[in-house]
Amino acid sequence: MTSGRLDARSVAAVLARVSESRPRVQCLTNTVAQNITANMLLAFGAIPSMAIHVDEVAAMAEGAGAILINIGTINAESELAIPKLLEAARDRGKPLVFDPVFVELSPLRRHIARQVLRLRNLVVRGNATEMAALAGELDAAEGVTRVTTGKVDRIERGQSHFAIHHGHPLMTRVTGVGCAAGALIAACCAVEPDPAVAAAAALTAYGIAGEIAAKRSRGPGSFAVELIDALAGIDEATLAQHMAG
Amino acid sequence: MTSGRLDARSVAAVLARVSESRPRVQCLTNTVAQNITANMLLAFGAIPSMAIHVDEVAAMAEGAGAILINIGTINAESELAIPKLLEAARDRGKPLVFDPVFVELSPLRRHIARQVLRLRNLVVRGNATEMAALAGELDAAEGVTRVTTGKVDRIERGQSHFAIHHGHPLMTRVTGVGCAAGALIAACCAVEPDPAVAAAAALTAYGIAGEIAAKRSRGPGSFAVELIDALAGIDEATLAQHMAG
Amino acid sequence: MTSGRLDARSVAAVLARVSESRPRVQCLTNTVAQNITANMLLAFGAIPSMAIHVDEVAAMAEGAGAILINIGTINAESELAIPKLLEAARDRGKPLVFDPVFVELSPLRRHIARQVLRLRNLVVRGNATEMAALAGELDAAEGVTRVTTGKVDRIERGQSHFAIHHGHPLMTRVTGVGCAAGALIAACCAVEPDPAVAAAAALTAYGIAGEIAAKRSRGPGSFAVELIDALAGIDEATLAQHMAG
Repeated sequence: MTSGRLDARSVAAVLARVSESRPRVQCLTNTVAQNITANMLLAFGAIPSMAIHVDEVAAMAEGAGAILINIGTINAESELAIPKLLEAARDRGKPLVFDPVFVELSPLRRHIARQVLRLRNLVVRGNATEMAALAGELDAAEGVTRVTTGKVDRIERGQSHFAIHHGHPLMTRVTGVGCAAGALIAACCAVEPDPAVAAAAALTAYGIAGEIAAKRSRGPGSFAVELIDALAGIDEATLAQHMAG
Repeated sequence: MTSGRLDARSVAAVLARVSESRPRVQCLTNTVAQNITANMLLAFGAIPSMAIHVDEVAAMAEGAGAILINIGTINAESELAIPKLLEAARDRGKPLVFDPVFVELSPLRRHIARQVLRLRNLVVRGNATEMAALAGELDAAEGVTRVTTGKVDRIERGQSHFAIHHGHPLMTRVTGVGCAAGALIAACCAVEPDPAVAAAAALTAYGIAGEIAAKRSRGPGSFAVELIDALAGIDEATLAQHMAG
Repeated sequence: MTSGRLDARSVAAVLARVSESRPRVQCLTNTVAQNITANMLLAFGAIPSMAIHVDEVAAMAEGAGAILINIGTINAESELAIPKLLEAARDRGKPLVFDPVFVELSPLRRHIARQVLRLRNLVVRGNATEMAALAGELDAAEGVTRVTTGKVDRIERGQSHFAIHHGHPLMTRVTGVGCAAGALIAACCAVEPDPAVAAAAALTAYGIAGEIAAKRSRGPGSFAVELIDALAGIDEATLAQHMAG
């Protein structure tokens, strides 16, 4: 059983593999968060692609290192594209991260979430409310990695468990910061076979970037800008310094 | 007849109700402005949701405190979702703010605007060109609150009238700043039963945030960032100081 | 044959015409880049409109000075809107800039690109990979202006040729910066009849804004903000100073 947290060296090793291999993450994500998601992926050294068209998502997933599905602004077309991405993930064994935004508010989202949760070895990232709304489906899902973000980020996969005590409350005051976390986890899953380790690496780096950004900003506007800068500047020494406390 | 302007205390009282009750604003808005709209709502203490799917907008509107419809990037799907939101607003008596972006340029937008303007007690926010293009429809609309933003923001509802002499020209040089104003008005309508007072409170706070941001920025890029920070930091003392002049 | 580069005075003259006549650029562009594209156009003194609905794109193109088509998040609806925009461009002789994002990854994008490339006098902006993927179609296209952006931006139209040695690597680390370049070229095409000169003016100004922004920023987040500020502040003296080196 793995538990606790990764050390700075392990986090840095995953990040180094991302920035060296520059995986493309095919994101079917909400239009509110697309911009910050793409910028966080670029800051991480990964490549975003944001195709949505039913007739091309499979082709766009083909060379991608991982797939993200986020239902924050699901529409009739992206609803049809989701099964294509699930198929691509299953047939090619690609890591897939699912973000069930506001699943507790909409029967349609719950319906879609149930379809997605049939895929094996899924990573699901949500806040406590979203994860609770899907508790039954998550219990039934095979090989699922649960990532519940909040004041403490909790990652569970079978016997593995990580708790990440990093981040800052301003991360919940900027739209898309949570959604971008899903994309960063996907980028790490593209280079790290254990999805719990991948998620722990991504969220440790992101949380520490949040701590650095909070010190440099005076509100949610400047925080968003500083968060991108801080993530782009993360290295092992910075990680070690912030993980020592 | 109410007229003139709100004092700092009245504005602060509306803002305090927003940040205490944290209303969710269901926004069907354009994809250009979604990000800044969500960030302004969060800076204001409100919660954005941006559903668009015909099969879920009614469910997403259900627990919302107010609804925003903005046609800046209207598409075939959001066009179909609008009647569902109008129905939700009418049946549940929810405040609805309508933003007729570029209605003067497109017969389709005019057609949609006419449908929306059949709803009673609507708040319509537009610039002078947009409001003029809809003058006939606005005259016929029952219980409508007209919010014409510009160098001076003018709010009219029956005998009530407010003129807001705040803001800065840079607010017209950043995309989505006007669209986000509609969302802030909606957030205030969720907690304040008089829509003219709600609009006056929102635009006074926003205009003053614009004045503060302009002093701290050196162009439209930094202005957008500072505007979010300034709005998040608005309190009664800041309002009073800027309204004293 | 024209070749080499424009001088600061020629670039400034094109920019002055943009900010004086304030052309509207009708952008059918990807939802990731819409916000930064609109903000760059505003910083340039132009007006963005982002209509996508099949039933209105022709009307929205009517009073526009130029049209941009970018397929970064092509969907079923925007796919149908493209022929309407091509028709508007052809029938009214409007400049049209095409950005074939990720055309090398998707047969659907290639199919759409082929349709677009049948239009005469098109400006095509892409990176080296995208332009190489369309080499055959570009060779066959009549009156096309090729704009290949990268470390050096290369502009070719018949016997005209410009090479722009400005810009900064951070421009590739922020999403939408390349897409916004297409919009700025379109804005210049609205006021300058030679599309190669228009593209050279836009990319010289943009590249110099990038150089200024890089000096003021400490990562891709602050760079994006500074890039907008720098572009809004470009004048002939600034151009001359940076082109002297």
